[in-house]
Amino acid sequence: MDMLHDLPDAFHRTERLTAVLAGDARVRRMLDVEVALARAEARVGLITDADAVAIAEGAARVSPDIPAMARASALGGVITLPVVAALREATDAPAADHVHLGATSQDIIDTALVLQLRDALVILREDLEGAATEAARLAAEYRTTPMAGRTLLQQAVPITFGLKSAGWLGGLTQLRRDLDHVSEQVLVLQFGGAAGTLASLGEHGLAVTDALGDELGLPVPPLPWHGDRTRIGGLVGWLATASGFLSKIANDLILLMQHEVGEVLEAGGEGKGRSSAMPQKRNPVETLAIRMSGQLARGRTTTLFASMEQEHERAVGGWQTEWTALPDAVHLVGSMLERTRSTLGGLQVDVARMHANLEATLGLPMAEALATALGRELGAPAAYRLVSSLTERVSREQRHLREVAHDDPQVQAVLTVEEVDRALAPDGWLGCADTFIERALTAWQQLGE
Amino acid sequence: MDMLHDLPDAFHRTERLTAVLAGDARVRRMLDVEVALARAEARVGLITDADAVAIAEGAARVSPDIPAMARASALGGVITLPVVAALREATDAPAADHVHLGATSQDIIDTALVLQLRDALVILREDLEGAATEAARLAAEYRTTPMAGRTLLQQAVPITFGLKSAGWLGGLTQLRRDLDHVSEQVLVLQFGGAAGTLASLGEHGLAVTDALGDELGLPVPPLPWHGDRTRIGGLVGWLATASGFLSKIANDLILLMQHEVGEVLEAGGEGKGRSSAMPQKRNPVETLAIRMSGQLARGRTTTLFASMEQEHERAVGGWQTEWTALPDAVHLVGSMLERTRSTLGGLQVDVARMHANLEATLGLPMAEALATALGRELGAPAAYRLVSSLTERVSREQRHLREVAHDDPQVQAVLTVEEVDRALAPDGWLGCADTFIERALTAWQQLGE
Amino acid sequence: MDMLHDLPDAFHRTERLTAVLAGDARVRRMLDVEVALARAEARVGLITDADAVAIAEGAARVSPDIPAMARASALGGVITLPVVAALREATDAPAADHVHLGATSQDIIDTALVLQLRDALVILREDLEGAATEAARLAAEYRTTPMAGRTLLQQAVPITFGLKSAGWLGGLTQLRRDLDHVSEQVLVLQFGGAAGTLASLGEHGLAVTDALGDELGLPVPPLPWHGDRTRIGGLVGWLATASGFLSKIANDLILLMQHEVGEVLEAGGEGKGRSSAMPQKRNPVETLAIRMSGQLARGRTTTLFASMEQEHERAVGGWQTEWTALPDAVHLVGSMLERTRSTLGGLQVDVARMHANLEATLGLPMAEALATALGRELGAPAAYRLVSSLTERVSREQRHLREVAHDDPQVQAVLTVEEVDRALAPDGWLGCADTFIERALTAWQQLGE
Amino acid sequence: MDMLHDLPDAFHRTERLTAVLAGDARVRRMLDVEVALARAEARVGLITDADAVAIAEGAARVSPDIPAMARASALGGVITLPVVAALREATDAPAADHVHLGATSQDIIDTALVLQLRDALVILREDLEGAATEAARLAAEYRTTPMAGRTLLQQAVPITFGLKSAGWLGGLTQLRRDLDHVSEQVLVLQFGGAAGTLASLGEHGLAVTDALGDELGLPVPPLPWHGDRTRIGGLVGWLATASGFLSKIANDLILLMQHEVGEVLEAGGEGKGRSSAMPQKRNPVETLAIRMSGQLARGRTTTLFASMEQEHERAVGGWQTEWTALPDAVHLVGSMLERTRSTLGGLQVDVARMHANLEATLGLPMAEALATALGRELGAPAAYRLVSSLTERVSREQRHLREVAHDDPQVQAVLTVEEVDRALAPDGWLGCADTFIERALTAWQQLGE
Repeated sequence: MDMLHDLPDAFHRTERLTAVLAGDARVRRMLDVEVALARAEARVGLITDADAVAIAEGAARVSPDIPAMARASALGGVITLPVVAALREATDAPAADHVHLGATSQDIIDTALVLQLRDALVILREDLEGAATEAARLAAEYRTTPMAGRTLLQQAVPITFGLKSAGWLGGLTQLRRDLDHVSEQVLVLQFGGAAGTLASLGEHGLAVTDALGDELGLPVPPLPWHGDRTRIGGLVGWLATASGFLSKIANDLILLMQHEVGEVLEAGGEGKGRSSAMPQKRNPVETLAIRMSGQLARGRTTTLFASMEQEHERAVGGWQTEWTALPDAVHLVGSMLERTRSTLGGLQVDVARMHANLEATLGLPMAEALATALGRELGAPAAYRLVSSLTERVSREQRHLREVAHDDPQVQAVLTVEEVDRALAPDGWLGCADTFIERALTAWQQLGE
Repeated sequence: MDMLHDLPDAFHRTERLTAVLAGDARVRRMLDVEVALARAEARVGLITDADAVAIAEGAARVSPDIPAMARASALGGVITLPVVAALREATDAPAADHVHLGATSQDIIDTALVLQLRDALVILREDLEGAATEAARLAAEYRTTPMAGRTLLQQAVPITFGLKSAGWLGGLTQLRRDLDHVSEQVLVLQFGGAAGTLASLGEHGLAVTDALGDELGLPVPPLPWHGDRTRIGGLVGWLATASGFLSKIANDLILLMQHEVGEVLEAGGEGKGRSSAMPQKRNPVETLAIRMSGQLARGRTTTLFASMEQEHERAVGGWQTEWTALPDAVHLVGSMLERTRSTLGGLQVDVARMHANLEATLGLPMAEALATALGRELGAPAAYRLVSSLTERVSREQRHLREVAHDDPQVQAVLTVEEVDRALAPDGWLGCADTFIERALTAWQQLGE
Repeated sequence: MDMLHDLPDAFHRTERLTAVLAGDARVRRMLDVEVALARAEARVGLITDADAVAIAEGAARVSPDIPAMARASALGGVITLPVVAALREATDAPAADHVHLGATSQDIIDTALVLQLRDALVILREDLEGAATEAARLAAEYRTTPMAGRTLLQQAVPITFGLKSAGWLGGLTQLRRDLDHVSEQVLVLQFGGAAGTLASLGEHGLAVTDALGDELGLPVPPLPWHGDRTRIGGLVGWLATASGFLSKIANDLILLMQHEVGEVLEAGGEGKGRSSAMPQKRNPVETLAIRMSGQLARGRTTTLFASMEQEHERAVGGWQTEWTALPDAVHLVGSMLERTRSTLGGLQVDVARMHANLEATLGLPMAEALATALGRELGAPAAYRLVSSLTERVSREQRHLREVAHDDPQVQAVLTVEEVDRALAPDGWLGCADTFIERALTAWQQLGE
Repeated sequence: MDMLHDLPDAFHRTERLTAVLAGDARVRRMLDVEVALARAEARVGLITDADAVAIAEGAARVSPDIPAMARASALGGVITLPVVAALREATDAPAADHVHLGATSQDIIDTALVLQLRDALVILREDLEGAATEAARLAAEYRTTPMAGRTLLQQAVPITFGLKSAGWLGGLTQLRRDLDHVSEQVLVLQFGGAAGTLASLGEHGLAVTDALGDELGLPVPPLPWHGDRTRIGGLVGWLATASGFLSKIANDLILLMQHEVGEVLEAGGEGKGRSSAMPQKRNPVETLAIRMSGQLARGRTTTLFASMEQEHERAVGGWQTEWTALPDAVHLVGSMLERTRSTLGGLQVDVARMHANLEATLGLPMAEALATALGRELGAPAAYRLVSSLTERVSREQRHLREVAHDDPQVQAVLTVEEVDRALAPDGWLGCADTFIERALTAWQQLGE
């Protein structure tokens, strides 16, 4: 089953995540939980081993008709109903009577979702690491390539493209670090029965719980968390943060791809990024998709946070909202990660243009450097004021800061021509860029160890 | 094609809106726009009538492969590419060369979306009117049925169930009034070419525009609105408001359905609202679905407002986000409207329970009435203080306010037993309820005229 | 009283709106409603004229201690309590006993808010009209000034700066049109008593309501709307849309202000937009503030829509959230409008740079024009393919499209050198730009009539 | 300085957080960073010790005029300008020239914010622990107090009030665990100079950085994070999650406080929760405030996530949005925590009403228990069907399930009267409630160790 039902869908879906998050995968995971529950109950002697085997065989025979199951779900108000019914039907008597024993719908749905998340987070982690690896490669490769640092969308002082890449790596490293924490908190069993007491299992409640956790490889939390979505909240916060930072990377690239900047280009390819009207255009495509997915993902996370006010033991609306909003958010962010990885991997970098853009602003990004050189003699405020007046002349006369400085008597009074030139060389004004790159690379490497 | 791809989907989709909003409907609408464009260009002599006919015939031959088209869209960065390609392929030469002449992708996509919206808003309007009609019926039918008015989730003073229904009608009436304004603003042609100048149509730009609007039955706005989404914003605001108010109705009903309140019940039915563990339960289902859809819809509207910051002549990300978020939001709200209509239509009202609940609070909701009667003699503040002390005794002694008041010397000093009893009769303390119901019904009827 | 309590506050506040929306203004408006209520009740004979006069005199004597009132509000759970208490204390007996007669807190709070909104919307309308007037001026003044049209942040085809301004005007015109509808819906009286029946006013409920509406100059709606926030929703949608579109204008300007683009500049001034470290910088300030306020405003509107699910007759949380979120949103958007007006009013436009940027891309934005000229002979698809190959050579060889086209045999076969040159002249490829500007100006003028 | 500027403000502010987050505290923290920077620079020999002393003395002399500073901030576009200016003015020459040396605005603003957060998170942690301690106390005290478990706002099966409290404790424990992770990530130094290279400090960049971190007691991250807000994102996600879960607790309490449920009551007090019109009402106040603050907080977190798409080295809008949105969100959530603590601390629990409500539903919440007892003989599905029919008779005939079961021949065939009674005793159907409470208490205790 694919998840491409409408024209924009391929912007936001990946094949690997579809295999984990599509409707049939969800049904399969719900059946897995029911089968594991039967096995757990057989282990503690509540049902026979033969029953557990029969239920597993039944589950294997279920062939889900998603549209029909969806209709039955909406009729009954909960998405376990058609799955349990199908499983009962496919299971031989007398085992069929023991399907779903002691569980409530939310036990099955939440635990199945956790299983889907466990698989999905592996994929997200891989693409996150892949993207970070590409950022690290760019950081190393362009370690000494000067370009304009830009603040408030104005050229500020020089940086290197390696440092910009190291900045991306820094955020990806943080996301990777947080993902470990978040995964550990959220990947746990949900099992509490009708209202969180497991009453219908009598004295066997805890034993079944432990066996079920064991069957599924999921830790057992202190108590059920039907109405407590703080564990989910941690993941949602991570998804929102990831969506924000990946959008930032995409936006940086889109801004660098502007015709007037032209410092990078997405990897091209047959039919990629073409306009239907304008033959010359090479539109951003991957980065465009990342920004779209980011906007959509943040709508889902807003919904998920708004849905956390859940009533009493099990909620009427808030929880059910997670059924679609959470897998959607995971898929959207997963798609962003895959595209960030491939975009950084295929990025074409125009080193000459970076240099040209830095020159085109007539030395203005070096104003701070000149002010610092002058400040050693004049004090910072006086130097700042002097350079302000010089830069105004640069703008007014459209002459390079170097020439204007050379001509200025106040500058001449404290700096030689050579000193001015040295102050205005971009690669002499990179400060700790190299060290910061090194430290970003190290931080990333240490995380993987 | 249906839109039921995962178990929760039927909570949020309706058949009628699926016919308008699904992937194949979108392709069809895009083809409709291309065909209309060809006809418009034939009318002004840019292409021949035969070309226009051939293009129409080509469009009729296109059989969309949605997954393939989705993949091609994401590759090229825009969802027109595969549609235009399919149309060109299906159209006989030489007409194929004239497909899409003078248009940009956004012209086709926005106008096709407007056509989808035009159909969808008809459906929304019908269900909104249907829901309002049911609310009006309830308002009339239960006009004099006393129940507890509840503020801050505490019993306050008596109202009637008719008045509560009239309150729902009031909001639905407002939504209906606003929908007319919103529809008129948003259902307009988009046509501007590559950057909003229609340059490639030379001197024929305006004539083609007018003819295209005429072909599609869409008004022509003063200028293209590629980067200006204020018209869309009006609709998004309406959807968010509708989602909020329909959630309010659903929430009111869910609160009234609580076992401890029990004043209404959703219409039952085979398998409806059953719990998998608890045989006695009759869960809210329709109202649950309305609240879920409401949460999801507001995630989409948050995204849509966040996406309105669109760059220059045509945007890189914000606009494209609308492709899915807007139809989603329309579908979710449409589904809420359909369910509100059916829920109100099938609502079971327990008049006896309403009366019993009002009595069960020992006359406390009539405290204001008693305070008002006393206040005529004692002044409002003194009466308020006296009744406060009486109600504390009611709570402490668990005796009815009537008895406590009868026994109180301060009350006896100013009111007879009969006056106390009259003051404490719920149906004597309904104020303007009847008139307000009447006015709400009239406002609704006048809107339709 | 000002509203500048923290360093960032002046980015988001205006003096005129502070006068309407600050804490003391809110108290004053609540007192106005209480006084009007007393007058209305005197008009229908519920209290004496002398009482009404005494209450008005009491209101004039109230000198609000906002921090103390805030504490009392939070203690009691509602912001009317300290205001009513202060009014009772300031009013001579026996009139003091008749203060607040028949009203519930929400009547006073909602109606006072409507009065604040009425004043605020006048200010918003003025600044909106001011901003539109400036956009209209720019549209007229730069009607024929060619610049690059940009789509997906790539140069597309030429437009004029007048057309870009007309696009801004188009959105502002739409906002102005919608504001009339929204204002009319939301500026109405709220009056229903404890649970919307006005029971405590006995047979006088409607007469008091009408007199109160008359005193305040507010239309009387069919019934109270305590729990029905659809009227508010219309305004919230407008605020969200305005915030989105004003952010779009600001973002356009910020993008044009990039060093590498440099086509416009905010009006300068002493100390404006200076960097603390970099003497040459001239940062965006007004537009920065607009984007900040836009983000903050959309947080408020998200909250307001999320709060519309209000329980029963009067809500526990959702309504109270409006007390701060709604005035905040109005103030933020009002601040955006004031700044948009001043920014457009002081905008410095660099016509030469617009021309230079269009040239700097080696004629690529004229590719569509050339393809159209070639297409008349070759058919659109063949022409599109030919021009694609020419533009690739432009990029590869960094030669102007004019030269490349002149040299190309396939071009030579169908177009003369003069025809190529004519096709590549930007001001020959502006299509309907002039007409669109004209129509945008007309639409704006007609709205004002 | 307080932060009570409007009537609703005291719902959302606390005195302790005001001391940390108000405007003057922000200025003080910015000055602290400037002073620490001077000391760090003196330590590495960039300036003299005397200069550093003079700067510290200057900082001590600054007496911030917040409104004036706010206006200057908005004029210049950044909130450091007036602070640095005031510091320079207050500092004796020649040290004044060395103020702010090597720093960019964002270094000062972000690090000052981190210092404010460090203090604020201590307060939040204390109130979180206080709230958890109260939840733990309730869990222990009402360990065996039966009440109705409620799912989808319907009575489901019995739980104990201790288990409900343990569920609250579970979420608070999770928040406490996550807070450690989040704090550790976000409480780090920001220091990078104009574009993240520290170029103006020449070879001293790293040494100053380390000394500055040391002065402020803040860890030094691998590289500056001006444009990378992932660390902030972790905190924002925590705030959104906390806001959601605290709203859940408040909502549970509000639902339990309904007149028709009446199982708990907020601690009363003079004037607390009184209605201006209805003398008998005792409105939720603390819980109301928690829900309000929750809605407002989530608006801020939506804004903060939306603002993470920050341009290049330092952003134009997104970052600046944090200046208000982040402290606001912290303050709102801090206020929720303080109120949750006091509400749980003063909660009045009506054990008798809990029992009565469980009885009032005629034994229906025990239906699962009866079905389980019958299921041992009949198999689960048959037992489920039988009990379904019994519960329908309970509803129809308004007789207790006990009686209906006693009379039923199918029941009689497999269970004795005593077995039926045993099955229907609520305190015999609590399953693992006691163990879950124990485990929740243990998990909380272990966290503190």
